Amino acid sequence: MPIPHLASTPALDLEKRILAAKPAIEHWLRKQWKHHTVPFYCSVDLRNSGFKLAPVDTNLFPGGFNNLNPDFAPLCIQAMMIAVEKICPDAHSVLLIPENHTRNVFYLQNVAALQSIMQQAGMNVRIGSLLPEITQPTTIPLPDGQSLLLEPLQRNGNKLVVENFDPCAILLNNDLSGSIPDMLRNLDQTIIPPLHAGWATRRKSWHFSAYDNVAQDFAELIGIDPWLIDPYFTSCGKVDFQEKEGLDCVAAAVDEILSQIKEKYTQFGIKEKPFVIVKADSGTYGMGIMSIRDGAEIYKLNRKQRNKMTTIKEGTVVKNVLVQEGVHTLESIHQAVAEPVIYMIDHLVVGGFYRVHMSRGVDENLNAPGMHFVPLPFDATCMQTNPEARPDAVPNRFYIYGVIARLALLAAAIELERYTQASSLALAEAQ
Amino acid sequence: MPIPHLASTPALDLEKRILAAKPAIEHWLRKQWKHHTVPFYCSVDLRNSGFKLAPVDTNLFPGGFNNLNPDFAPLCIQAMMIAVEKICPDAHSVLLIPENHTRNVFYLQNVAALQSIMQQAGMNVRIGSLLPEITQPTTIPLPDGQSLLLEPLQRNGNKLVVENFDPCAILLNNDLSGSIPDMLRNLDQTIIPPLHAGWATRRKSWHFSAYDNVAQDFAELIGIDPWLIDPYFTSCGKVDFQEKEGLDCVAAAVDEILSQIKEKYTQFGIKEKPFVIVKADSGTYGMGIMSIRDGAEIYKLNRKQRNKMTTIKEGTVVKNVLVQEGVHTLESIHQAVAEPVIYMIDHLVVGGFYRVHMSRGVDENLNAPGMHFVPLPFDATCMQTNPEARPDAVPNRFYIYGVIARLALLAAAIELERYTQASSLALAEAQ
Repeated sequence: MPIPHLASTPALDLEKRILAAKPAIEHWLRKQWKHHTVPFYCSVDLRNSGFKLAPVDTNLFPGGFNNLNPDFAPLCIQAMMIAVEKICPDAHSVLLIPENHTRNVFYLQNVAALQSIMQQAGMNVRIGSLLPEITQPTTIPLPDGQSLLLEPLQRNGNKLVVENFDPCAILLNNDLSGSIPDMLRNLDQTIIPPLHAGWATRRKSWHFSAYDNVAQDFAELIGIDPWLIDPYFTSCGKVDFQEKEGLDCVAAAVDEILSQIKEKYTQFGIKEKPFVIVKADSGTYGMGIMSIRDGAEIYKLNRKQRNKMTTIKEGTVVKNVLVQEGVHTLESIHQAVAEPVIYMIDHLVVGGFYRVHMSRGVDENLNAPGMHFVPLPFDATCMQTNPEARPDAVPNRFYIYGVIARLALLAAAIELERYTQASSLALAEAQ
Repeated sequence: MPIPHLASTPALDLEKRILAAKPAIEHWLRKQWKHHTVPFYCSVDLRNSGFKLAPVDTNLFPGGFNNLNPDFAPLCIQAMMIAVEKICPDAHSVLLIPENHTRNVFYLQNVAALQSIMQQAGMNVRIGSLLPEITQPTTIPLPDGQSLLLEPLQRNGNKLVVENFDPCAILLNNDLSGSIPDMLRNLDQTIIPPLHAGWATRRKSWHFSAYDNVAQDFAELIGIDPWLIDPYFTSCGKVDFQEKEGLDCVAAAVDEILSQIKEKYTQFGIKEKPFVIVKADSGTYGMGIMSIRDGAEIYKLNRKQRNKMTTIKEGTVVKNVLVQEGVHTLESIHQAVAEPVIYMIDHLVVGGFYRVHMSRGVDENLNAPGMHFVPLPFDATCMQTNPEARPDAVPNRFYIYGVIARLALLAAAIELERYTQASSLALAEAQ
């Protein structure tokens, strides 16, 4: 597929500063990776409004490896070798546990891509399914002529295995949205990422709280207002949209965030109309998300909207919500709105793609059910810069995306560390 | 340049075994990199005779980064990021010290390629020249329209600097063939690779002695005869070809190696005529090398041949010689003999090229002065294998080359460790 040029964004002071500070930034990042244990892999959804560039979602179980540019597969393989060295140096056999979407062929292509990257990096990889209907090895044909072999997971004491395969590590590509299956508890094998990286425990507000700190430090490093890379947010607990409980908190939070945004828009002379995103504090797949411009709207949701906000993936009921500054997306391809998604293995940016949607507005969530987005693989890496090109031209823009994505990755590392510390503290106090 | 297919080699048991054992090999290599400090960068010349695949030269100051396939530049950049993290995590400014060949435009393109890789990896890099005639910043135009800025090195106490640039590390791309310049001694900055990796101290026989051990372990891992990847060798000291001193040792060594080879050729049913290579035990650039088939030839060298064996790069006089089993090269392109050269940054194989020579035989040294070799960049990475292709087809062959090259890299790591241990022992004994 030929890669069209993107509608260009106004040249940004932010972009110029990031490009000029490349050696300082890479040096600072090296220091961070020395002090923090980075997640095994990660994808970050970004929003680029022309005046602001920020992560809006950080996924610790990335599901779009099939959308990356095949030309950069070697980068993924090399990064995977590094990730394996750091996180499971003694492993040579890995059991990959995917999501339970056997009918989503796009997702299954992602699983096949991930398996291939790991195999090329020198690992034995087999795929163990949590689905009860996978009772025997099942080959699923894929559109590209390849196929995927799903095998039934078996618990063997404190080990998970598939027939004739004794893996030293488990790689989760399942975000544990519903809950942590019993089968995965108390295993002797290394589980990557750790179980508490799943949505059964993880909270977006914890992530963005860690990101606040990262953005603050980074902004200081390159001399910018941290707001330029960090969306305002707050959260509310005990919300039930169905029963109309806890709505006061949400409405007040919306209005508070809106007034904070307005202040910044005035300060920077921005003419756009502010909006906020209300979404489930745990969860993914763009479910339970809405875009609003006034706190009062929260009380006027119709039944369909309230349903949408109540039940998300795998029937999980939303109780905690995140209220986050909306960031417009200015990037578009043939009038279609586009949102960049950046992929990382260990701390290395291995590529990205645009999520392009033909019928959505600049202030809407693009990761919505039934959106049928078109993935548009990046045609350049996120490492190489060109000092002679415009700061917002490819590949400079992609480098900048890679920097902001790595800030979100660092926030994820800190978020997981804090969770571990908090849990051991809670455990110690309970004893 | 389109990449022609290579004359194919007979399918080898060796190749099949390496491909089948990929997970075991990568796992074994991961273990080695945990226990050994790997050189910052390295290139390895290989010989593939169809029945034997072996390294014949391991260069710790690689000079052909410009010959790699530009499509794989991202791999070099990513590997450079890893190398910097491991070896000089606190550095953000590096002074690159090249060889003193200001007139060799091929070499200068290598320096430019290396500088670009480091800059794209986020380092500030400037080039300090040891040449006395570089008394002020000198821009040298390159054929591709780029240019290279050479600056005079200045010693500032225990630091090497160039004007307005205070580097935290020195990267040598100068193999110190003659001797270690005083300017480089007793510096407070990190020097990469260490000074003892240069030819002023390094010996090929030490390298191949370390390689013997590595090849032995690897052969055991995959169940092969280590000879299939390891050339026989021995060395002689106090040799003076000019004065015809020490020739008995060389002639006897040649005959001994020849008889060892003959035994193996008989064992494996190989019909080729054995030959040995006699070369300087320290040094590079293919100087001081000859190919012979009988120990008696050593006494019959004419004046020109004796001169060639006596004085090598920068007027260094050969005293120690390496006598090594010759490995035929079976690879050819349009009837021209080809020798693969593999490039590594840290422990990562980033690419390679063929050194192609139109007028040399299968049993001659291809890295000879005035050889005007044609570099033919590899058109695939050395990581990706294709289980459905022949074991000797690209990309499988390149993967195998990458494995053998990494064995030589590991030998270099061990060789440098042994040298450090031996030096501190000598120092301790002297006190």
